[in-house]
Amino acid sequence: MSKNFGKYIVEFIGTFFLVLVIGCSATLSSTSFINAIAIGFTLMVMVYAGGHISGGHYNPAVSLSATIRKALPVKQLMPYMIAQFAGGIIAAICVNYFADGPSIPSLTGYYLPLMILAEFLFTFALCYVVLFTATDEQTQGNSYFGLAIGSTVTAGACAVGGTICMGAFNPVVALCATIMSSCCIKIAIITILANLAGGLAAALVYRIIKEQT
Amino acid sequence: MSKNFGKYIVEFIGTFFLVLVIGCSATLSSTSFINAIAIGFTLMVMVYAGGHISGGHYNPAVSLSATIRKALPVKQLMPYMIAQFAGGIIAAICVNYFADGPSIPSLTGYYLPLMILAEFLFTFALCYVVLFTATDEQTQGNSYFGLAIGSTVTAGACAVGGTICMGAFNPVVALCATIMSSCCIKIAIITILANLAGGLAAALVYRIIKEQT
Amino acid sequence: MSKNFGKYIVEFIGTFFLVLVIGCSATLSSTSFINAIAIGFTLMVMVYAGGHISGGHYNPAVSLSATIRKALPVKQLMPYMIAQFAGGIIAAICVNYFADGPSIPSLTGYYLPLMILAEFLFTFALCYVVLFTATDEQTQGNSYFGLAIGSTVTAGACAVGGTICMGAFNPVVALCATIMSSCCIKIAIITILANLAGGLAAALVYRIIKEQT
Amino acid sequence: MSKNFGKYIVEFIGTFFLVLVIGCSATLSSTSFINAIAIGFTLMVMVYAGGHISGGHYNPAVSLSATIRKALPVKQLMPYMIAQFAGGIIAAICVNYFADGPSIPSLTGYYLPLMILAEFLFTFALCYVVLFTATDEQTQGNSYFGLAIGSTVTAGACAVGGTICMGAFNPVVALCATIMSSCCIKIAIITILANLAGGLAAALVYRIIKEQT
Repeated sequence: MSKNFGKYIVEFIGTFFLVLVIGCSATLSSTSFINAIAIGFTLMVMVYAGGHISGGHYNPAVSLSATIRKALPVKQLMPYMIAQFAGGIIAAICVNYFADGPSIPSLTGYYLPLMILAEFLFTFALCYVVLFTATDEQTQGNSYFGLAIGSTVTAGACAVGGTICMGAFNPVVALCATIMSSCCIKIAIITILANLAGGLAAALVYRIIKEQT
Repeated sequence: MSKNFGKYIVEFIGTFFLVLVIGCSATLSSTSFINAIAIGFTLMVMVYAGGHISGGHYNPAVSLSATIRKALPVKQLMPYMIAQFAGGIIAAICVNYFADGPSIPSLTGYYLPLMILAEFLFTFALCYVVLFTATDEQTQGNSYFGLAIGSTVTAGACAVGGTICMGAFNPVVALCATIMSSCCIKIAIITILANLAGGLAAALVYRIIKEQT
Repeated sequence: MSKNFGKYIVEFIGTFFLVLVIGCSATLSSTSFINAIAIGFTLMVMVYAGGHISGGHYNPAVSLSATIRKALPVKQLMPYMIAQFAGGIIAAICVNYFADGPSIPSLTGYYLPLMILAEFLFTFALCYVVLFTATDEQTQGNSYFGLAIGSTVTAGACAVGGTICMGAFNPVVALCATIMSSCCIKIAIITILANLAGGLAAALVYRIIKEQT
Repeated sequence: MSKNFGKYIVEFIGTFFLVLVIGCSATLSSTSFINAIAIGFTLMVMVYAGGHISGGHYNPAVSLSATIRKALPVKQLMPYMIAQFAGGIIAAICVNYFADGPSIPSLTGYYLPLMILAEFLFTFALCYVVLFTATDEQTQGNSYFGLAIGSTVTAGACAVGGTICMGAFNPVVALCATIMSSCCIKIAIITILANLAGGLAAALVYRIIKEQT
């Protein structure tokens, strides 16, 4: 039982970010091509991050297909689908929450609670991808770690950058924004703290997943 | 004989999707850059999916070149070309059928028969790519599975997303669209069924190809 | 001597296509972002195709850097640079020739001599990339063959597709264009012949390079 | 001590280019999607170039996450962060300097000091990426060298090409620009010298990093 629990967390997290990026890029940006790239990149990075744990399905049709091909045990099909739908539905609720962000009046340019959540979530995703693709023994020697890490930032920037938050996902970038542009120091400090919290959370979740698989 | 039949199916399927995406993105979308990306991505994913089976040519000029370089036996050149032309011509007929889709009046936003076909076909492509790149013993240890899987969704979204169908290719995404946007529940349910049927078909075709090579 | 001649051919070909795509996409298309993608893709595919033969420099600054780092023997630096400048200059002359294409009156939509040359050159590039990345013993087991092959078509389509030629680089696509769009059968047949000639030439050049390294 | 000094240089250089591209593409170009691609590509190429030396963090949140996961020793966390902030801050100062470039009147189209610096810096980045991904014993057999090399040129072209400099990063391209377009020979010669200086500097920095790790 516990051996599979880590897989369900991976499926939950991957589907959460997939739906989050689909929803944010479709709601907040305007071009369907950008959405298509952001969605494909998100699926790619989550497949690279979690593929060696759960198979990286994030999609009940894929889980069904893998079950028929005997790549997924029949009795795991239902928990996989539950984890996927749970991740997606929670992401959809987040998206509805984010979608109101740009219209909320704010003295600092961004509505702080959403800004903090967005910087936290995508820095979490970035560190989660780094830990699984660039530091994990099971993925050692792979050639995709750079593609996965870079594309996470691109996907995050397409989803929430410039609309909900500055899209730094990196304390250095947040600080430098105060030097290069008119970003105020208050926004930079809050972003830095959200980024560090995201990195911290990713390390904890990484440890839980590794213990449960 | 039977040993090569799987190769011809792979060449048929790959060339079918190549021409389908070329035709749909050229006919339904407007920017030649998006077409160039969608076409390149489709060729890439089909080469990754079928390369270890048939060589992943999907192009008579490539098959000719491979034959001269002795990478393809001379007597397979003709069946390869026949499979490629057959896949391309059937795709071209599909494209003509799809091209009329957006102009057919529909109460639900999409013309249902084309919507079902598009969601079915691209979920089939997605699961076909997943099975060959992420679950197949012959491609184990590769570093391209995430790139191939993510790019299939990008190519599908560029080809038919938002014009012929919602471009979910994933039951979770279809369901979440009812939470995040104005997508009606009826469209979501039909999309979910088309996605599951695509996953089912991919598993069956995967088994046939593996048995015939 | 003969051992290095294949390397110089590879450097010549790679730099030729690099400058050809830079020139065509800058002259014939309008967005600097599309140029940036097309140029990066072209460099990528040529590095993947020729990297194991010549190092895949296509750039005197890179060859200088590699010489200092002792990755290239000092006495090969000059022939490398000569091959690179020769390839680039011939490509630049081609670009000037192509640039006049769209303004030459033509009954069939494209000016035939340039159309044939463009379809020939980029089908040559496609087959050259396929032979080196997907059939060569020295690159066996790599994970980049699909990325290289797909990106060659994207780069070619960005450089000359729709302006100088239809950008098929594939007889199936050329034929199917007559079914899906208003492309006349005459253009399709000429394109098919140019594509097959490109595939033939690539196989011959591949053999020469392999014999000379 | 000396064993880790090379790691800090790698973190400094990677974060420098990350912030440089973020700042230049955000300040000089206009589309947030292009910025998102340029930033993701830059992070990708720097992770590929330096990953085997320092882990390729370029981000204090990632370093924090890696420390908790025990992939980075606790006592290196502070020097990593210092190197990252130092690289970022110097890049931010460069960006402010570059941002004024297009408005400085110039007889030759580009303001020469900035043009030289931009061509030097991105040719340095290109050669640095080539040396670490395509010539280094520790990264031998990888499948990402072409992706990293091509994407460096794309990122550089998005950041400074056409605004601060022609974006050649290659003496052949600089020379051919005089044949294909109205680029004057003086600009070409200065660009060629800046490119060669960048290649020279990259080889020296490569040697220092290798000696210090």
